[in-house]
Order: sequence, then C-alpha cells, then structure tokens
Amino acid sequence: MGAEVLASLIAELPDGMVVTDPAVTEGYRQDRAFDPSAGKPLAVVRPRRTEDVQTVLRWASANRVPVITRGAGTGLSGGSTALDDSIVLSTEKMRDIVVDPLTRTAVCQPGLLNAEVKKAAADYGLWYPPDPSSYEICSIGGNIATNAGGLCCVKYGVTTDYVLGLQVVLADGTAVRLGGPRLKDVAGLSLTKLFVGSEGTLGVITEVTLRLLPAQHASSTVVATFASVQAATDAVLAVAGRIRPAMLEFMDSVAINAVEDSFRMGLDREAAAMVLGGSDERGRAGTEDAELMAAVFAEHGAKEVFSTDDPQESEAFVAARRFCIPAVEGKGSLLLEDVGVPLPALGRLVTGIAHIAAERELTISVIAHAGDGNTHPLIVYDPADAAMMQRAHQAFGEIMELAIGLGGTITGEHGVGRLKRPWLADQIGPDAMALNQRIKQALDPLGILNPGAAI
Amino acid sequence: MGAEVLASLIAELPDGMVVTDPAVTEGYRQDRAFDPSAGKPLAVVRPRRTEDVQTVLRWASANRVPVITRGAGTGLSGGSTALDDSIVLSTEKMRDIVVDPLTRTAVCQPGLLNAEVKKAAADYGLWYPPDPSSYEICSIGGNIATNAGGLCCVKYGVTTDYVLGLQVVLADGTAVRLGGPRLKDVAGLSLTKLFVGSEGTLGVITEVTLRLLPAQHASSTVVATFASVQAATDAVLAVAGRIRPAMLEFMDSVAINAVEDSFRMGLDREAAAMVLGGSDERGRAGTEDAELMAAVFAEHGAKEVFSTDDPQESEAFVAARRFCIPAVEGKGSLLLEDVGVPLPALGRLVTGIAHIAAERELTISVIAHAGDGNTHPLIVYDPADAAMMQRAHQAFGEIMELAIGLGGTITGEHGVGRLKRPWLADQIGPDAMALNQRIKQALDPLGILNPGAAI
Repeated sequence: MGAEVLASLIAELPDGMVVTDPAVTEGYRQDRAFDPSAGKPLAVVRPRRTEDVQTVLRWASANRVPVITRGAGTGLSGGSTALDDSIVLSTEKMRDIVVDPLTRTAVCQPGLLNAEVKKAAADYGLWYPPDPSSYEICSIGGNIATNAGGLCCVKYGVTTDYVLGLQVVLADGTAVRLGGPRLKDVAGLSLTKLFVGSEGTLGVITEVTLRLLPAQHASSTVVATFASVQAATDAVLAVAGRIRPAMLEFMDSVAINAVEDSFRMGLDREAAAMVLGGSDERGRAGTEDAELMAAVFAEHGAKEVFSTDDPQESEAFVAARRFCIPAVEGKGSLLLEDVGVPLPALGRLVTGIAHIAAERELTISVIAHAGDGNTHPLIVYDPADAAMMQRAHQAFGEIMELAIGLGGTITGEHGVGRLKRPWLADQIGPDAMALNQRIKQALDPLGILNPGAAI
Repeated sequence: MGAEVLASLIAELPDGMVVTDPAVTEGYRQDRAFDPSAGKPLAVVRPRRTEDVQTVLRWASANRVPVITRGAGTGLSGGSTALDDSIVLSTEKMRDIVVDPLTRTAVCQPGLLNAEVKKAAADYGLWYPPDPSSYEICSIGGNIATNAGGLCCVKYGVTTDYVLGLQVVLADGTAVRLGGPRLKDVAGLSLTKLFVGSEGTLGVITEVTLRLLPAQHASSTVVATFASVQAATDAVLAVAGRIRPAMLEFMDSVAINAVEDSFRMGLDREAAAMVLGGSDERGRAGTEDAELMAAVFAEHGAKEVFSTDDPQESEAFVAARRFCIPAVEGKGSLLLEDVGVPLPALGRLVTGIAHIAAERELTISVIAHAGDGNTHPLIVYDPADAAMMQRAHQAFGEIMELAIGLGGTITGEHGVGRLKRPWLADQIGPDAMALNQRIKQALDPLGILNPGAAI
C-alpha cells in the first residue's frame, strides 16, 4: 500500500484525524486479548462525526483497505486486533450524548464509556442497566458491537434489549438510520438487532438511541460461601428457579483468595466458592427475596451466609466481584474465557473446568454471572514458559469444547473476535455458519470490515 | 402451473397434507386484513414436522412457487394474504410444546396459540408475558413473525425479548438452528433476532425456544376517565415518566361506548377517553404505584378515578380493553391501523387522527397501548358505500403519514404485511429499504417467500 493512497485519505479528513506516528499507532494494535500476532496498521483514524466515518469507508472500499473499528480497546476476544496495512478506526473522540427524560431515551455517539452513559442518565434520575465488569473503561459502541452483558443482566437483559435505534455506516460509506426513539416499531426487518453483536463486521455504528429505565431501587445483597462448587451451583439453580434476582454471581476459591490478597475484606479463604445474590425489588419484597436467597443458600449447606441492606456494604461485595479479573491477573497472564451453558449444566461446566485445569497442570479460576449460566474461566499462565503457554491454549480450546458439549456457547457476552473464531462452527454448525456468511457477503461484499473476526 | 407439478409435491408428503379442495382452501385466502384482492392458491399445505416444511420449500424453490406462511390467520396487515398459484403453508398442525421449568424455557412448534403457550407455562407456575389482545386466537408462530406486542409490553417487552432460539427452514429447504436455551449467547450474528419480525419473508419458523418468567404477581388496576383526549395522553406521559406500569392503556369515547353497548359495565359514556393503568409490583409497592397513578390522573383533571386490587375487577377492565376491536367492529367494517410515536407526540397523534376523521367524514376510534406510544386507530366504513370506502382508505394513508411526520412508525406490533407496504419507504427511507432488500436477496434469491409482503 503506497503512501500516496493514504495521502488521499489524509487530504479528505480534518487535520490530525489520521495518525501515522508509530509511537501512537502502536497503542492501537491490540485490545485486551493482547494478541501477539497483531498487525501493523497503515494508520489510526479518530473521526468525530458520522461524515468522517463515511469518508473513511468510501476510501477503504475504493482502495480495498481493511477497517478495524475500535472502541475503548477493552475487548477480550481480539475483536479489534489490528491487521497489517489496515485502518484502525477508533471511535474514542465521538463522545456526544443527549438524554431525553420525556421519552426516557439517550442518543449518543459510540466513544462514550458505559460509565459515562450511566452517569448522563443518572443526572436525570434515569438508569442505563447493562453493566459489564469493565463498565468504567469500556465504550458503549464496543458494548453494542459485542452485545455486552454484565451483572444485572440476569434480571434486566443485555445490551440489545436497550438499543432502540442505530446509525450505521456501511462498507461502501452509506449512512443508514435503523429504528429510533419508538418503544415499539416493527416496520421492516429487525436490522437494529442484527447490527448489535456484529463485532464491526457489518458496518460502523456512529450513533445509538438507548432506552433508559427509572433509577434502580436500592438492593438487598446476600453473600454465601460454600465448601463445594457443586453446592454453590445447585444453590444458584434453586434461587434462579424461584425468584428474579437482580444479581446472582459466583466466584471460586482462586478468585476469593486473589481478591482477598488485594482487598483484605475478610472473605473466607477456605471456601470453595462464594455466591452473591441481589434483589432490587421495592420495600418488603426486596427483603423477602433476600431472606429467600439466604434460606436457599443455608439449605444447600452454605458455610456462612451474610445479608445486608446497606448500600455501601453491598457495593463492597459487588466491587470485589468486579475486581476478580484484575486480582487474578496478579498471578500471571490470563487467557479469558466467556463460556455459557443452560443453567442446569452450570455445575458440570465448573467441575469439568477443574478437571481440565488438573490435567493441564494449570490454575484456572472460574467467576460467573451464574444466574445466566455465563462463566468466565481465567486461565493463568506465565508467558515466559512456552510449555505452560501451550498447555494454556490447549485448555482454552478444551473449555470451549466442554461448553459446546453441554449445549452451551463459546461466548456469552465478550464476542467471538479472532480468539474464538476457530470454535464458532463447532457451536453453531455449518448451516448457521453459511447463513452468517451470506449476511456478511450481502453487506460487505469486498470483505473490508474487520476481516477475520467473528464470522 | 400444471397439476403434474403439484402432484410431485403431493407424492412427497404424507397423505392428506396437501389440500386442494376449493371449499377448504377458500378459508386460507385471507387473514383478518380481509384483502379483497387475495389470490387463489394452488394448494394449502399443513405440515406437522420441520421435514415436511423442508420438502415444501425444496419443491417450491425447484418450481419457483411462492410460499405464504400462515399461522392462525389473525394477522391484521395482510401478511398472509394468498397469491394466485402460491402455496399457503399453514402451521396449524404443528402444535407440540415442552416446558422445562429448570431452565425456564419452552420449546414449541409455531402453530400453538399464544394462550396455549401461556397455559403450558402456567402449568409449571411460569409465565410467557407477550399478550396481544388476540392472544386467545393468534399463533405463537405468527407472533414471532410479526414481533407481536400487547398490553404488558410497556414493562415486559415484546416477543423478540422472549425468543432465545429458533429453527427456521430457508427458501432452499435447509433447516437451520439459531440460538438456543442459553440466556446469554453472542456467538455469531444475531440471526435469531433477524428472523423475529421478518413476516415470512426470510424463512419458515418451525420451532422456537422461548424464555419464561416466574408467574406474574397480582396487579393493582386504576381506571380513569377524562373530559379531553389531551388530558388523558398528558396523564399517560406523566405516569410513564415516573414509574414502570405493567399496563398503560387508552380507549377513546367511540371505544368506550362500543364496549359499553356490549358489556354494560357502567363505563362513563360521556367521557372523551379512558386510561387503564396497572402495576404488578409486589405487596406495598404495587399499592404505591396504584396510588401514584390515581394521583396523577386526578392532577390531570380526571372525571372519575377507580382503583382496585381485586383480580376479577381488574380482569373485567382488561377484558373491556381487549374487547374494543370486536366491539367497534359492530359498527361496520374496519381498517385497522397500528401507528406509534415517541411518547411525547401521543397527544398530537390522537388529536391529528380526530382531524382526519372529521375531514374525511368518518368514525375513527382510537385505542392504544398508550405507555408505548402505540395506537390502534380503527377506521369504520360501510363496504357497500364505495365513496366511504375510498375515504376510509385515504384516511388510512393519512394516519400513517401523520405518524411518520411525528417521528413515528406505521406499525408498532402488527407488521407491514401487504396493507402498509406502500408507506414503508416513507418511514425508513431509501437507504434502509435498500439494506432490507440486500438481506432479503441474500436469503431468498428466488423471491419465493411471501413475495410482496413487508419489504
């Protein structure tokens, strides 16, 4: 790719929007999957407006240049790993938001962080529910591209449930509005929903209309520790079958100890597992839910059960759960999984992962949005130990195969990216793969949008 | 189309599955849009299994025969109006359902009625929320094909929010499984969501995995009458901005009087509008919501406000609301609209419809899922009066244009079908239309699936 081709893009965009300084572009080659085979992009483009994105894509189509769209770079599946001679399109400077309290919607650009969307909504007494653990550092555009989940999704659903409308720029540079601020709208195909979770392979999201809810009510939180993983997952299943908790999370002993190392909260280091349940039902109903969860945990042989209505105490436990990944990261490099299963198979998944860890002589910590059956096994390895790294990658594949064998998914909320792509066909089968390809081919016939990712 | 071509289909399917008796096929030419230009199908096919549907579509592709998929025939937009020389594929005999209380899911075939799905879930203490007014006579497959809504959607969302997985048969006869009983799954494109609301244009749904909720809590209901439509819609907006009601419905004076003619419930015949609010929050919270709604209605000048926690009294009002369409149908033939707007425009939509009714010298009753901004104007006409019928059709178009002008949609929950297709491009614009066509072309290149409908 000649410099003169890039010069034509630079000429079409405002000064400084195209960055080629290697000291800067280096920081855009990887996301948090830290793919060692990440390529060197031609340039990083940081558009401000939809029109800038249209210019990039028209140019990219004309010159057959791959475009890797990137939000805050916190993706865990390599969905925004750069390719050689590609353009990395970073949405970080697209940060406008307008909240309309009358329609309870927000119209925002993709570069805003999830936490900033929550804050803007909260300024009007409103709430944007989806809450990935990384909500303080991940972008709303990335959330939409991966259909991100989080802790409250067990009751409140995932990102797609809050996306009413999108503006997307297609591969050829056409900007299209899909959906809008109407709470019910079935005119035409459900294209808004198709773009949610499409991981930058069908178009670039430049604006989103989000549905907001009234502020969440205060939560009652119940924390229980268990002597066995199976008792903990059985308790999760029993709770999920009886009420709709607003949170139902799981941490194994590795995660408990890693968090305790950092936080000194007094967590039970001897426990095999910890379960956090929350209810945001109003008034007495929340207390009833908490009492029910505490009783179910006790029935399932919990070692300790602790309940609190105090928001700060609750938040401390939630913060501990959110801190699991960085805490376990203190033990080494991580390969992060995102496998999910139908809820009754949760125990078999977690114990199966323990077997894989033992066989491969690895530490694998399991944390989970347990109420959804969505787990995050964290495979710890030393990058300086080549044999260990190979065993870690073997375990990475084996865990996905285990999940598929249990009727599960290779990714509940992080996306397929480049890391999990080899396993996608095993999960969804050749006919669904072919159907994905037909849609991709119809929308991106030149294959310039995030090639090699997701599908 | 020669009889020998149809003979090859008859030979491939079980005895009696292909029906050509005109006395029977006559009943499959129209849905409840009663399109007078409905064609005469070659045959009606009533498959029992996915494999039968595959046989039909392979044959249809080979012989270029259009296939119109039909659920219970209760569609209001002409989405299953037959074409000449087409096959009407009726799912009425595909009626299996299996509920799994552990995963809170149901796997069912498309021909089951919505009410039967609700009943099967209720047998396990579970709840399938979406509740179109026609829930006792409409099929779950038709609900999915149109992404149907209902009364509880203002809090609980629409059909797509409960569809976890589908089996669909594509135009070429390939059967594909999309999604499944996993609560979170982002592996591959969101194809499950794409097929929901596709109105039989992308494939035939032969099995669905539905998400169920724990049984709904008892509702508190508040009914208020208003001397003006604007006061009523202002009250709706005020309630929707403060709480999450489980129902927020609107009936105008025509509907009130039509229902009262049939039901003799003692409704206020002098009122300009009636609003029904419901809360299913538990215990004291439900009562608080009801008190808040009653207070808001009173602040907005309600003529009468009546609150009840009695399930039978509540159900009587809900039944009255559900009965509006048949009640107004007593006054003449109906052209049924399904227009929606962002909530703050609801008052302008309803008063604008009144202007159209006055100008066109027509009775147009407006009922609405008001909390979603989704209205059903019912245009009454006498089919024997050609001039009136023409005015009714003029008003039909003008109401959609009014909704579009207010930033709204031509269809909130019924689908585009054939009736509203001429207005679709005005709403979504040429680029979104082209995108719809690209998807359609990719999935149904021969154009045999419900040609002329929706997109």
